[in-house]
Amino acid sequence: MEAPWSREEFVDRLRAVGEAKYHDKHPFHVRMHRGELSPPEVRGWIANRFYYQKMIPVKDALILSKLPNREDRRRWIQRILDHDGRGDDEGGIEAWLRLGEAAGIPRAALLDERHVVPGVRFAVDAYVHFCRLEPWWVAVASSLTELFAPDLVARRIRVFEEHYPWVRPEGLAYFRQRLHQAPRDAEHGLELVVRAAPTRADQERTVAALSFKCDVLWALLDAVERAGPA
Amino acid sequence: MEAPWSREEFVDRLRAVGEAKYHDKHPFHVRMHRGELSPPEVRGWIANRFYYQKMIPVKDALILSKLPNREDRRRWIQRILDHDGRGDDEGGIEAWLRLGEAAGIPRAALLDERHVVPGVRFAVDAYVHFCRLEPWWVAVASSLTELFAPDLVARRIRVFEEHYPWVRPEGLAYFRQRLHQAPRDAEHGLELVVRAAPTRADQERTVAALSFKCDVLWALLDAVERAGPA
Repeated sequence: MEAPWSREEFVDRLRAVGEAKYHDKHPFHVRMHRGELSPPEVRGWIANRFYYQKMIPVKDALILSKLPNREDRRRWIQRILDHDGRGDDEGGIEAWLRLGEAAGIPRAALLDERHVVPGVRFAVDAYVHFCRLEPWWVAVASSLTELFAPDLVARRIRVFEEHYPWVRPEGLAYFRQRLHQAPRDAEHGLELVVRAAPTRADQERTVAALSFKCDVLWALLDAVERAGPA
Repeated sequence: MEAPWSREEFVDRLRAVGEAKYHDKHPFHVRMHRGELSPPEVRGWIANRFYYQKMIPVKDALILSKLPNREDRRRWIQRILDHDGRGDDEGGIEAWLRLGEAAGIPRAALLDERHVVPGVRFAVDAYVHFCRLEPWWVAVASSLTELFAPDLVARRIRVFEEHYPWVRPEGLAYFRQRLHQAPRDAEHGLELVVRAAPTRADQERTVAALSFKCDVLWALLDAVERAGPA
């Protein structure tokens, strides 16, 4: 049996997955961030990505149901509250609906999923099933794309402001929320995984889970790109 | 196909399940409320029932993951927050630990489950599996013992004050919380079930789910009674 990686080595291996295959390297995403997408292409991405957004609380509730103790649930549940909202905070799903409206997609067209293409549904459902069926710490590991999200989201806000000014600026609120939510979530996720994956075999399974999640996001963009403008 | 029951008839059928087999009629429970349990028997009940209490957020997270929309999740998640706590609110699981301490059970003895007997574990696990595997509205229906809980809990507070004064009164905080939580939860649960169970067959399945849940609570008391004092 091989010795486990040190924490630093482990985190480096996780980061290497992101460097190799996080979806910011997908050709469609590259075109998005170069400002090369047409308005219908941007709308196609927003409308399809909504299916991913709306399933986030589902996968987080599945993970919540499996976490080993109350203390970790008390932290994890914040993700669900962030997306579903609570009290006056309308939450991330509502913010994404407003992004759609700011880009000219009627709310009803997001809610009834008329633009969601099969490949996107399959990829997102695969992610939810993964979180339902895998051990909790493997499911948590798949959420660690949050390690890479803040940089990307910070760039995306500037990209939209510069290249897609026809998207009304209040639509970008979702991305601004994620700037502080994602690092907090990634920190807890990493802490859970480091604690629950002590052996090299566990660590490798964790890296594989993160790789799988990158595949989900990549396949989502494949399907959006193929589908063309919404 | 038989016509569905009216809402009133449906609710009457649900209430009839409680009248027939809610655990307040179990011989052990009857003895408890007559003040006839010895201190070790009361402790045995508290320590075993803790296994049920600690699994409540698990089953509620499973149901949360299956609810059909954000609005219902926003209401349902309150159950998890009530039991796990949030911020300064320490929640119902902590309150039950304090009930145990007020009755002379060390916190560690509740947490390590040393007093939990197999029959209690099987019954509670059966309930969690039911909520994991059944459709969401059937799982919700199984929670409707909350319709019967407030009366019982109100009586229980008086019973403990009168018959078991050796349980320090601050230990009864859990029951006091439930006095207002359970009616609110039952109202939402009933609303969900009425909406999701439009046919007679659905309604009968709902009644069966509530009957199953009564069996869980009954079997728990069977096992506690057999095990004797903790």
